[in-house]
Amino acid sequence: MEPLDLFNKLNVDRTELAYQYLTSRKLTEELFSPLSIEDYGIQTEEDMSPPKWHGGHTTWFFDVNILRNFEKNYKPHPEYFYTIFNSYYYAHGPPSPRSERGFQVRPTVEEMRNYRFDIDTRMSKLIEKEKNIYKIAELVKLGINHEQQHQELLVSDIKSILGKAEMKPAYNKKTSRRKVVADPKFIDFDGGVATMGRDELDGFSYDIERPKHRVYLNGDYALRNILVTNGEYMEFMKDGGYQNWKLWLRPGWFLKEQEDWNSPLYWIRTDDGWKMFTLHGMQDVNPNEPVIHVSFYEADAFAKWAGNRLPTEWEWESAVKTGDYDPSKGNQMDSSDSYLHPIPSGKGDGLLQVFGDAWEWMLNANTEYPGYKPFEGDVGEYNEIWMDGNSRILRGASYATPRDHSRDTYRNFADQSMRIWPTGIRLAKTTNIKKLNR
Amino acid sequence: MEPLDLFNKLNVDRTELAYQYLTSRKLTEELFSPLSIEDYGIQTEEDMSPPKWHGGHTTWFFDVNILRNFEKNYKPHPEYFYTIFNSYYYAHGPPSPRSERGFQVRPTVEEMRNYRFDIDTRMSKLIEKEKNIYKIAELVKLGINHEQQHQELLVSDIKSILGKAEMKPAYNKKTSRRKVVADPKFIDFDGGVATMGRDELDGFSYDIERPKHRVYLNGDYALRNILVTNGEYMEFMKDGGYQNWKLWLRPGWFLKEQEDWNSPLYWIRTDDGWKMFTLHGMQDVNPNEPVIHVSFYEADAFAKWAGNRLPTEWEWESAVKTGDYDPSKGNQMDSSDSYLHPIPSGKGDGLLQVFGDAWEWMLNANTEYPGYKPFEGDVGEYNEIWMDGNSRILRGASYATPRDHSRDTYRNFADQSMRIWPTGIRLAKTTNIKKLNR
Amino acid sequence: MEPLDLFNKLNVDRTELAYQYLTSRKLTEELFSPLSIEDYGIQTEEDMSPPKWHGGHTTWFFDVNILRNFEKNYKPHPEYFYTIFNSYYYAHGPPSPRSERGFQVRPTVEEMRNYRFDIDTRMSKLIEKEKNIYKIAELVKLGINHEQQHQELLVSDIKSILGKAEMKPAYNKKTSRRKVVADPKFIDFDGGVATMGRDELDGFSYDIERPKHRVYLNGDYALRNILVTNGEYMEFMKDGGYQNWKLWLRPGWFLKEQEDWNSPLYWIRTDDGWKMFTLHGMQDVNPNEPVIHVSFYEADAFAKWAGNRLPTEWEWESAVKTGDYDPSKGNQMDSSDSYLHPIPSGKGDGLLQVFGDAWEWMLNANTEYPGYKPFEGDVGEYNEIWMDGNSRILRGASYATPRDHSRDTYRNFADQSMRIWPTGIRLAKTTNIKKLNR
Amino acid sequence: MEPLDLFNKLNVDRTELAYQYLTSRKLTEELFSPLSIEDYGIQTEEDMSPPKWHGGHTTWFFDVNILRNFEKNYKPHPEYFYTIFNSYYYAHGPPSPRSERGFQVRPTVEEMRNYRFDIDTRMSKLIEKEKNIYKIAELVKLGINHEQQHQELLVSDIKSILGKAEMKPAYNKKTSRRKVVADPKFIDFDGGVATMGRDELDGFSYDIERPKHRVYLNGDYALRNILVTNGEYMEFMKDGGYQNWKLWLRPGWFLKEQEDWNSPLYWIRTDDGWKMFTLHGMQDVNPNEPVIHVSFYEADAFAKWAGNRLPTEWEWESAVKTGDYDPSKGNQMDSSDSYLHPIPSGKGDGLLQVFGDAWEWMLNANTEYPGYKPFEGDVGEYNEIWMDGNSRILRGASYATPRDHSRDTYRNFADQSMRIWPTGIRLAKTTNIKKLNR
Repeated sequence: MEPLDLFNKLNVDRTELAYQYLTSRKLTEELFSPLSIEDYGIQTEEDMSPPKWHGGHTTWFFDVNILRNFEKNYKPHPEYFYTIFNSYYYAHGPPSPRSERGFQVRPTVEEMRNYRFDIDTRMSKLIEKEKNIYKIAELVKLGINHEQQHQELLVSDIKSILGKAEMKPAYNKKTSRRKVVADPKFIDFDGGVATMGRDELDGFSYDIERPKHRVYLNGDYALRNILVTNGEYMEFMKDGGYQNWKLWLRPGWFLKEQEDWNSPLYWIRTDDGWKMFTLHGMQDVNPNEPVIHVSFYEADAFAKWAGNRLPTEWEWESAVKTGDYDPSKGNQMDSSDSYLHPIPSGKGDGLLQVFGDAWEWMLNANTEYPGYKPFEGDVGEYNEIWMDGNSRILRGASYATPRDHSRDTYRNFADQSMRIWPTGIRLAKTTNIKKLNR
Repeated sequence: MEPLDLFNKLNVDRTELAYQYLTSRKLTEELFSPLSIEDYGIQTEEDMSPPKWHGGHTTWFFDVNILRNFEKNYKPHPEYFYTIFNSYYYAHGPPSPRSERGFQVRPTVEEMRNYRFDIDTRMSKLIEKEKNIYKIAELVKLGINHEQQHQELLVSDIKSILGKAEMKPAYNKKTSRRKVVADPKFIDFDGGVATMGRDELDGFSYDIERPKHRVYLNGDYALRNILVTNGEYMEFMKDGGYQNWKLWLRPGWFLKEQEDWNSPLYWIRTDDGWKMFTLHGMQDVNPNEPVIHVSFYEADAFAKWAGNRLPTEWEWESAVKTGDYDPSKGNQMDSSDSYLHPIPSGKGDGLLQVFGDAWEWMLNANTEYPGYKPFEGDVGEYNEIWMDGNSRILRGASYATPRDHSRDTYRNFADQSMRIWPTGIRLAKTTNIKKLNR
Repeated sequence: MEPLDLFNKLNVDRTELAYQYLTSRKLTEELFSPLSIEDYGIQTEEDMSPPKWHGGHTTWFFDVNILRNFEKNYKPHPEYFYTIFNSYYYAHGPPSPRSERGFQVRPTVEEMRNYRFDIDTRMSKLIEKEKNIYKIAELVKLGINHEQQHQELLVSDIKSILGKAEMKPAYNKKTSRRKVVADPKFIDFDGGVATMGRDELDGFSYDIERPKHRVYLNGDYALRNILVTNGEYMEFMKDGGYQNWKLWLRPGWFLKEQEDWNSPLYWIRTDDGWKMFTLHGMQDVNPNEPVIHVSFYEADAFAKWAGNRLPTEWEWESAVKTGDYDPSKGNQMDSSDSYLHPIPSGKGDGLLQVFGDAWEWMLNANTEYPGYKPFEGDVGEYNEIWMDGNSRILRGASYATPRDHSRDTYRNFADQSMRIWPTGIRLAKTTNIKKLNR
Repeated sequence: MEPLDLFNKLNVDRTELAYQYLTSRKLTEELFSPLSIEDYGIQTEEDMSPPKWHGGHTTWFFDVNILRNFEKNYKPHPEYFYTIFNSYYYAHGPPSPRSERGFQVRPTVEEMRNYRFDIDTRMSKLIEKEKNIYKIAELVKLGINHEQQHQELLVSDIKSILGKAEMKPAYNKKTSRRKVVADPKFIDFDGGVATMGRDELDGFSYDIERPKHRVYLNGDYALRNILVTNGEYMEFMKDGGYQNWKLWLRPGWFLKEQEDWNSPLYWIRTDDGWKMFTLHGMQDVNPNEPVIHVSFYEADAFAKWAGNRLPTEWEWESAVKTGDYDPSKGNQMDSSDSYLHPIPSGKGDGLLQVFGDAWEWMLNANTEYPGYKPFEGDVGEYNEIWMDGNSRILRGASYATPRDHSRDTYRNFADQSMRIWPTGIRLAKTTNIKKLNR
């Protein structure tokens, strides 16, 4: 963690902090509520985690990073909790193998809930009593944001778990009635020098969003107002998009051939047309909804087929900063009773669906910002060790992002092949590029 | 199924059959009783199955092979039950992939229990009422034996599930007080023509035990009275048995190197000596107990190290038929409160530990008997499709074999590399072989 | 090696031995003659070896097992020869990895030839001069037989190498004019006690053919006079043999699905009918020739489709011993100018194509004979370490077996999935099996 | 290809072009000269290619892209040449599988040489005679540059082939006598707006170097004058660099563990200290030479250990453009008799070893330039399909880069895990970064 400045030291509102903490913790519980005990332990792929694990791991984060260091007379839980619920923080000792998270039948779900309850009680007390509250306030905020990220992962994991079962059970039943989609059009933005990212004092952010710095956008550009829809994507499919090598990056083409991709993940062709598995169970594919569960390779191929390209994160952030896009108004997640599915854009001006519905694949690879410094201390492993460039940036937010977790500088990233998250497509194009003098 | 003879037709005792059916079904329930809901869904390896699956599959066997064909107004359960709970019987439609048994979160455990209850009720009625009882009696007996095999697999799977968890929870607590082991010695048997196997009219048997036929044993031989003990196996380990290539079949050596075997499965070296995971939790390795969880390759290497060899199944069966070995007296399984662990032999004459404690690796590969005919009808897939020679014969029974499931002609088999079952070692040697005239 | 008896000691004919040695060595050279330098170094699969390696390895066998122990003032070749050309004999130090045989660009082909020439010169001298000739005579014979086995492997490897190349170059041009095939019929043989194998004093044999012993054949049986033809196999294919799971052992079915087998190896469907790659280049599939390049699984499925089964090796040897089948008369290998392809049977009585054309898959798995003892000394690794049961027995001989290498007790074996060797199908059936008294 | 402008149309010097063509082609022949026929066909890994293939593929490039389109009465070579020698250009039909390049025993080396000779003759004639020379001039230049890239790959492939052989044969014997290395120091450069890349009219460049555009360097920075030496790298090793997870990107750490990296590729620890395989055979590791054969992950870990970081390509290009670094003066490749090994820097001012010795790993991932347009026509596949971000940029040149192939805008790229190329490390650091106003 960065050294805290005086401003922060003097202004921690304990009540507010405790409220944020408990609200965030409660959301996880609520996301669990529709599940059967049988659903909590399943790990569908090495990259995914069981719901029970998310519940334990987010608790462990507060336990080892805050309580262990600040609580008087700290008493640990059974030793194996600290092995199982450690994700990848070597500073906290060797984690149990990632691929074996689905084998941990103990603690039981009830024991995991008890762990959560115990840590919440102790954390509440600490927030109330700790003299040097400023010492832990930043870590509490980090822990809350950490849990929010896991809430989104939890939703994707639940979808994968239920989707793997032959029975295809639904998670919730609440669906949107919105049917209208805006007319697609491109909106213009100016190039030139732009400012990216934020600094420590600009409110909470992850280290990889920092520091605030300048980029040079070489030309004016335009972004499409709405995300690519299922209807448009079906056009791409009908036009042989999955069979036309000219549209594909070659590594993506090889992967597509090997994995036999012919549609987005979760889509199934039936005699009765295309269906897809959703958190509401099997549904018809709605042509007005944004397409999701496409990899970067598919997004890139679609954009080429459409005669456009994907945006860079610099273009995206610069464009979004020109407007007044409120993350709290999008189709994001409040509870297990949120829509938890992308919905048609509705009518409106400017960029639509910026925060919510689907993460947007960016053209540029994941590279650290100039002057990047990882978090200090044990939480330094949070992001730094994954900055290996082997991925593309995702911007915006999805239907599964907790509502107050989003911001215009937020940088998510995923491997080009990832289809398990709700990732969609926003089109871009260059409108005017001036040749430099020779 | 073989055509039934008159004898069988006239003599089916409905009460006895119903009693056997219900007793066998109840044992499965009892084996479930120590489990938490969290334990039922886990599949630790592609070759293994979740407890919930065993519960459903054994029920499905009666459902599709008997009720579906004989019950009036037969009403099926939800369609996905018939996909999920089909193991490998293509005659009953395409099974869901074996490797995805651990992903089936529905039916829940409770729904699986309800499925069992419903089928048991209907089966009981059918056994009571069916006019042509002789038509189903053989199938009921096959189903009972089928469930018994799965009860043994269930115990191995439970051990694997609990053993994979960091916490190493125990399954039951009942242990034996027997400490004494007999003095090891070899017991002599005669060679010559011997009779193997049994016929359809000799009582229940699997198709692969048939028909009764002759073999020629080329020489007199001896079998050791007791199974190889942990103490003896530790001598082999200390003497570099795992490092001496001269003792190993080369494919076994390669496998050992690749998998880094240095002891039986479930053994862990600690500062405090060798421990092993058992169904009673972590225990010290007891030198007087029979060694288990060794592959054929390890059994074969041990036998060579000891200057002996493994027996053939022909020698084993011929020797056991000379005595009066009662399968109902061995350390086998009655309930979840059985020892469920091998125990020291105790004192005694003749061959000890013949039925119970551990399956015994035979020297010969799995080849069908001369005149072998698979079961007729849909149950033909039971054994026939697996007779591919890629395995060795196992004889006897283990601590996890249901008590009335064993017999002297019983043929179990497993891949040479298998260590997850309670497999042990009985030594053999040739004592007198006459040269044939040239 | 077994202790030699007086008879052998007194009767070694040095000239005869040297002649056999040199003749055998010359055959390898002749098999090389149609190759380009480019062909010598290729390893198409981990299980296969480059021609250059065969040339060096067979030489190394004489070098380390005979010259190193018996030659005065023995001078070794460069050290890396002894690593590269060691196949799997740990007694001679660590071999270089099997999968990297195709990476050994040194020695060059010319250097390998020089190695052969040098060792041949020294071996000839040793055979001529060694006082205690009886000490080495058995090892020389073993080395000759060893080289013969590699000559057959060499031909399979050459076929694989040329077949992998886009150009599909031919190896030789000599083809047979024989077109006639005998009418297929079954020939009867008696069951009962039969004698298998041979002893050390019965002339050269491998350890796994020993000792001479008795088996009990439970019933009379019949073998088909000719091998299954391509024409018959095409009937099986047309009748959906590759799509009918009822005919297949399940592990074979899984393998077939995974590898997408629809015909024997080397067959290609063209607009112009089925073609196959042969050592004479691409050819039409001749319906009168025996089918080859089928795995055990395919052979077994074919036999079931035909309403028959495969023979056991005990039936095969017992049947062949009743007749007067001369290995020197079959379609085997003399030189690189042999047909090197199976040919139609021609007319004739009794069993045809017993030695030559194609190895015949046996029903039984590979199990050691009762009383089996491996060769003594460093050559003990020759067979013993591979007796792991994971394979089926092959009997007879193929078009690529050196003419004087075959005998009625010869036991070859291969994994059930093997298709790269010239393996074919002889049908069998049980004609009369008496029930044993109860 | 881009539309050519008038300037180019009027000024093609046929003699100069033919000279460049032939000189470049001759260099490939010369690189072949030390090889034995046995070395030409080996493919050590799926990502690598046999020397024979490089010889054929570079010829095919001229054949299908120029002769086929422009030569009158064009006559093709055998059809399989066009399958085998196609690398990945789907526009020219399906290539034979990349992993099977090592199986193509035909054409022979001599036939490949004849192919080269024939195409060279016809290309020379075309360059001399073609009326519309401007139509082919750009394609000829592209073909020459293409061949230069393959010359460098060829040298890496040869090193890998010889290094895989147990004998470790040398390729050439010429070594440098230079022993002196400059004192290491950092050299300062200014941040701010900088110009990257080049346009079509700036002389030959690849599409991925275009267009000329601006970037904003957020702060002043410094680059180290010399590449990291073997001596420095051994310090890192001694200090536990390979054991300290804090220095490593986590995916790199996993890879290192899995592949058991403890030193650069080709290094071997002996009783006599560290040795390494070079194109001159096995050599002592010279502490004054630049370290090569390290992956991005190792380079990044080293930089962190040293308290520095790797440079971005924007910093590198901006710095190099401030100086007067002549690619023709570095330790690059002229012939098979070049040093073909990195050498100590010698004394000197400014940045040393900029062009030559080793490719330098850049911090940033491979992302296309703003306004990037792929080559037009069939050669569009040249770079575009590989722009998938899954790699890092390499700048500079190596000892194996043909001398006139380098320039300050040149962008090479490789997967983070690549160690088979001569990749080294130049250190960077930020010297002064101004906070932006909030």
